[in-house]
Amino acid sequence: MIAPAFDPARPVLGIIAGGGGVPALVAAAATAAGRPVCILAIKGEADASVERFPHHWLHWGEIGRLFDLLSRERVGDVVICGAVNRPDFASIRVDLGAILSLPRILSFMVGGDDTVLKNVVRFLEDRGYRVVGAHEIAPDLVGDASLSGRHRPGKDADGDIAVGIEASQSLGRLDIGQAVVAIGGRVIAVEGIEGTDEMLSRVADLRERGRIKAGRGAGVLVKAAKPQQDLRVDMPTIGPRTVETVARAGLGGIAIEAGRVMIVDRAATIETADRLKIFLAARDFGSSGSRRP
Amino acid sequence: MIAPAFDPARPVLGIIAGGGGVPALVAAAATAAGRPVCILAIKGEADASVERFPHHWLHWGEIGRLFDLLSRERVGDVVICGAVNRPDFASIRVDLGAILSLPRILSFMVGGDDTVLKNVVRFLEDRGYRVVGAHEIAPDLVGDASLSGRHRPGKDADGDIAVGIEASQSLGRLDIGQAVVAIGGRVIAVEGIEGTDEMLSRVADLRERGRIKAGRGAGVLVKAAKPQQDLRVDMPTIGPRTVETVARAGLGGIAIEAGRVMIVDRAATIETADRLKIFLAARDFGSSGSRRP
Repeated sequence: MIAPAFDPARPVLGIIAGGGGVPALVAAAATAAGRPVCILAIKGEADASVERFPHHWLHWGEIGRLFDLLSRERVGDVVICGAVNRPDFASIRVDLGAILSLPRILSFMVGGDDTVLKNVVRFLEDRGYRVVGAHEIAPDLVGDASLSGRHRPGKDADGDIAVGIEASQSLGRLDIGQAVVAIGGRVIAVEGIEGTDEMLSRVADLRERGRIKAGRGAGVLVKAAKPQQDLRVDMPTIGPRTVETVARAGLGGIAIEAGRVMIVDRAATIETADRLKIFLAARDFGSSGSRRP
Repeated sequence: MIAPAFDPARPVLGIIAGGGGVPALVAAAATAAGRPVCILAIKGEADASVERFPHHWLHWGEIGRLFDLLSRERVGDVVICGAVNRPDFASIRVDLGAILSLPRILSFMVGGDDTVLKNVVRFLEDRGYRVVGAHEIAPDLVGDASLSGRHRPGKDADGDIAVGIEASQSLGRLDIGQAVVAIGGRVIAVEGIEGTDEMLSRVADLRERGRIKAGRGAGVLVKAAKPQQDLRVDMPTIGPRTVETVARAGLGGIAIEAGRVMIVDRAATIETADRLKIFLAARDFGSSGSRRP
């Protein structure tokens, strides 16, 4: 199930860990499959749950130390996962490796988040590492067609899902956001760079101000990956908090693109959805295999 | 220049007037062309500037009185223009005509704003009136290719305009919003039902929080009509306030679809743009004549 190590002489899976539970889930999946892991946990970002596995704590900016550790720990494949906040540049400890890499690191900061991640991937690959996706190590992280809680979309919701899928595909091709909200057969909100949670807060606000006529429980959040999205480092995610925000926005449910959206804590996500009467559905958005990078 | 009256026996142009300066501009244009006008001014909405022309004040809900006046004043063509707030239903005076029309009026309230306006148009047309667009009476209201202030888009802005046009066309076909913001060759915000001003406030907020890396003066608001939009009653508009909001969002300028976006006060809009160093540009978005309803 798990791809064999890229280089048998360097069998260890390195996990560069931001916040949340995903890094520990990836480590657990790799360990269960007999693959040794080493977590490179970013101080101020990574969760204490990573300490159950072989790990080192690093500060932002300790690039030299990162590559020392990757080499010393015999890491060949690297997973980058977990949420990261924008680092507080004033507090960054810049080590010798970072100074030597400074021109490249500065280039990370230019452009959108996609560009930053692409540059990080290239930076690692240039140094002989293979970057793999968290979902390649822990396939259970990804919502597939079996995803469902207690509640199911009704006929109106199916219409909103169809409209939302059509819109999200067009938006994806234009490299705009990953998510839309459709109510009553119409897209009423589109995610730009503000992110899914802020778009949903906007929908809640529009509803409070009477700008949404449909009753509570109507409408759906549709979330998909962009066709050109690098799922190894930038897979769209939903989780319990998404479900709560969807409920606050008065929507009926969430539809994700099957196989291309991560669920950060499946059990808690489904439990929250059941409790708040939110449906969960994973649908094929008509993305062919060739759309995957 | 102005289309002849629909019915020579009823030569008067009726102007159902909401707020702002557009109704008086339409009345002035018609008067200058020798066409008699009668303004039906909505109390609490219409501007005092309409009182320079033959007029009657009406309350929301006085449907019977509206049709009495249209008939008595020999109105054949009707322009519906000016901003309207959602009426406070508790304060509506419902007259006999409204009660007789109640089923139809209730049907106005269902669906999005587009549906409401479409129903109002059909309601008038069913009673023998021709609904014409404000821009058909006062073509100067519409931004054409000559629109420009002191500032011109630079090369980066041209790139953002192109990206914004492509996105707005896709979004229009999906019946989503009329406006997008593009910065650095990427669409970062899309208008849903919240409207252009709120989308721009969001961009200002994203910039304050450091989520937009480009400096002030980069980026453009692109605004267009949807292909299926009924320009007679629902033409997208910009005005001095749009320019101010664009400046607060730190953008460099505004690009509109030539011939399909109204400028509510051209002189003040250009003056504000010049003062705030905002460029104004009208471009052909590739909408063929056949796209016009």
